Amino acid sequence: MSDVNRIKERINFCIKGELWEQIPKFFEELHPADIAEIINHAPASSYKQLFEMLGDEIKPDVLAELDDKVEADILDELTDEEISDIVEEMAPDDAADVLGELEDEQREDILGLMEEEESDEVRELLQYDEETAGGIMTPDFVAVQADMTAAEATDFIGSLDLDEPVYYAYVVDSKGRLTGWIQLWELLKHGNRNQTLADLAESETISVHTDADQEEVARLASKYDLSALPVLDWQHKLVGRITMDDIMDVMEDEASEDIFKLAGSSESELEYTSALHASKSRLPWLLITLTTGFFSVLLLNSYHAYLSFSHAIILGAFVPVILAMGGNTGIQSSTLVIRGIALGTAHTKNIPKILLHEITAGAIMGAICGIVFGLYALFVIGREETAFGPPYLALTVGSALFSAMAFAAVFGAVVPVILNRMRIDPAVASGPFVTSSNDILALLIYYGVTFLMISLRS
Amino acid sequence: MSDVNRIKERINFCIKGELWEQIPKFFEELHPADIAEIINHAPASSYKQLFEMLGDEIKPDVLAELDDKVEADILDELTDEEISDIVEEMAPDDAADVLGELEDEQREDILGLMEEEESDEVRELLQYDEETAGGIMTPDFVAVQADMTAAEATDFIGSLDLDEPVYYAYVVDSKGRLTGWIQLWELLKHGNRNQTLADLAESETISVHTDADQEEVARLASKYDLSALPVLDWQHKLVGRITMDDIMDVMEDEASEDIFKLAGSSESELEYTSALHASKSRLPWLLITLTTGFFSVLLLNSYHAYLSFSHAIILGAFVPVILAMGGNTGIQSSTLVIRGIALGTAHTKNIPKILLHEITAGAIMGAICGIVFGLYALFVIGREETAFGPPYLALTVGSALFSAMAFAAVFGAVVPVILNRMRIDPAVASGPFVTSSNDILALLIYYGVTFLMISLRS
Repeated sequence: MSDVNRIKERINFCIKGELWEQIPKFFEELHPADIAEIINHAPASSYKQLFEMLGDEIKPDVLAELDDKVEADILDELTDEEISDIVEEMAPDDAADVLGELEDEQREDILGLMEEEESDEVRELLQYDEETAGGIMTPDFVAVQADMTAAEATDFIGSLDLDEPVYYAYVVDSKGRLTGWIQLWELLKHGNRNQTLADLAESETISVHTDADQEEVARLASKYDLSALPVLDWQHKLVGRITMDDIMDVMEDEASEDIFKLAGSSESELEYTSALHASKSRLPWLLITLTTGFFSVLLLNSYHAYLSFSHAIILGAFVPVILAMGGNTGIQSSTLVIRGIALGTAHTKNIPKILLHEITAGAIMGAICGIVFGLYALFVIGREETAFGPPYLALTVGSALFSAMAFAAVFGAVVPVILNRMRIDPAVASGPFVTSSNDILALLIYYGVTFLMISLRS
Repeated sequence: MSDVNRIKERINFCIKGELWEQIPKFFEELHPADIAEIINHAPASSYKQLFEMLGDEIKPDVLAELDDKVEADILDELTDEEISDIVEEMAPDDAADVLGELEDEQREDILGLMEEEESDEVRELLQYDEETAGGIMTPDFVAVQADMTAAEATDFIGSLDLDEPVYYAYVVDSKGRLTGWIQLWELLKHGNRNQTLADLAESETISVHTDADQEEVARLASKYDLSALPVLDWQHKLVGRITMDDIMDVMEDEASEDIFKLAGSSESELEYTSALHASKSRLPWLLITLTTGFFSVLLLNSYHAYLSFSHAIILGAFVPVILAMGGNTGIQSSTLVIRGIALGTAHTKNIPKILLHEITAGAIMGAICGIVFGLYALFVIGREETAFGPPYLALTVGSALFSAMAFAAVFGAVVPVILNRMRIDPAVASGPFVTSSNDILALLIYYGVTFLMISLRS
């Protein structure tokens, strides 16, 4: 691997120094994925120049690996004929991904320039939503008949002009419906040679429909340890398969999506490098926080109008820590529930259990932090001469911290459960929503406890 | 799939009603992964009973799929002989995972009970760290010689007694060093039959050393679209391969790890269901926040001592929103950088670019939010009769919000970069650390701006 890094460094050096003529011979030594990585990180002005240096046979592979933004920039500078020549050599699912990014009119022009067989396959794929099984499948698969022997099936597979990895032979009936599968390595076993696929193939196949969410595809592949997943239409006819590379891409994308959504932004930031784009994707979530800010200012302002100066000042000093503790506790809870939902370990039946778990954890942590901070208030911050003496302050701060944290733990767990039941992706809305709502809730709890203590004392 | 869910529901019903005798016939219809899911979610008291119902041939597959906690509970109740019988039937990497969880003494006893060939393989694997390539590889692979023809290699593979999926044949030299690979489907092609592997095999192989981090394994597999990854020792000898199921597990684990660490907890929470365990894993992060709370209380307290009553009250009301906005902006930045580091898109060379990007995005968002909140302060909150009139309040709040957000964006991006360079996993420390530090920074900025405004005014 260190060789690859050395070559990449040399290319980057050449790009910086504009020593263009040196680059093609270095490119020849690299994998398309590495070339794509170099172009992705090069200055935008050199995208096209670098792409044009590639041999025609490698252009389709590199294009399929480029970031969407870079790909779009390069396609912008190519003619329809050039694009159609490249796309024709791509796997149909990759070709559909590229053409899906273009305007309708240009897409039709390019499809018209392609050979009919290929353009038909791509057109078929283009009708599916990008994030469904249909949108990520390839229509190329190996279908065999149940009455073939393993040796006949092996021979049949060898006669096909395959150009993409094949791990499974799919057994189909006369109507093209999937009835079983067998892996290539099992076909080769000497003991299996003369047996028919009816005997050998696994009939308990796992498959998805064309409109299954890509997240479900990744979940099934991972759960059942599958290297490819067959895709059926609504007549149970086998129409494609989803290959390992796409399954891995989905797993990465879905993880990125969840991580970014929890933070209140979008995974598209990984590709689009303009600060304006980043601001656009982040601002809506910040505005949720800003809106709750309108209320927190009003709340604090009106609370303090009811308090004496010394009360208001000393109690106000604890506001940041109570909000921060509530916010963090809430995020810990929602993260557990959101990831549990994504991985399929949290489901309807164990929701009462999850809520009980969260309220207990919140209470334990709240009790510990409440006692620690109560002691801090008692011995460090409290002043005998103030109207609100140290013991009352300690009791107020400690019990407010305890209640805010216990409540935040439950609230953080409930929100994603409710969102999920409303069929809203819980990762989208939970992060900033939970933190912001917790700010308001914690303020209500804190000053609620304060007024209770004051009324108890007077 | 709905069939599976129906059977699972029936089993859960039987578990609830303790209708044990009904369960085995349902189990027979399920995939080991589904059986494991049912046991994982069953009451702990029924783990062993459910496991004992399984046929001997399926026990190893189910055990390999169980959550660590459930697996440990079941192993606790089995004798060494029973464990050794089950483990012997497992793939060596799965067997090593199970035995790795046991105490040294019990592990040695069980290894002693196993057949020597199997126990040697497992002992070999046990010496590697669990989260390295050596720790997740299986020592079973197909090695072929370069002078074989494709037809000879196919025949050779068919003669092996394989019981785990094989997608690649690895070409090795006389010293067992990896010189190339070829996929099974390529061996089968009629045109390749009489050619030697020296001509056919891909010589630019991608491999890892036994001590490579599992995250690197997942990154390579995903980047180069590999279904299996060969593992070499330090003499470049091929010693194992990492299969797809393990690569997918690593991808899920690493994503969970990052997500939980960002929230300040641990992915072990997905398995250990006690609230006490959850509190233990979450508390350390909350204590970071609590500790910064000690300072924020002192800061606010001493700031307010310098301010008049009306100043302190009205300015204090804006503290929550300024902290929340700074905190969220910081988390958005660190998420982008952390995920970029994990996916390999952020590297040393583009760090100045990333920082510039973040300060720009922070400034854009800070300007927008600062103006919005400044106007809110001017027209809604500000009171002419107070010492600090509306225009000054608006200017103070607006510019503090702007500065806090711009600064948080840079700080959020810098922290993971520094941690990464110190070889500390940036996801571990960034979440709660960034939020807490931002609270203090935002307070310093806010009251810094306040005192500046007051001194300008007087």
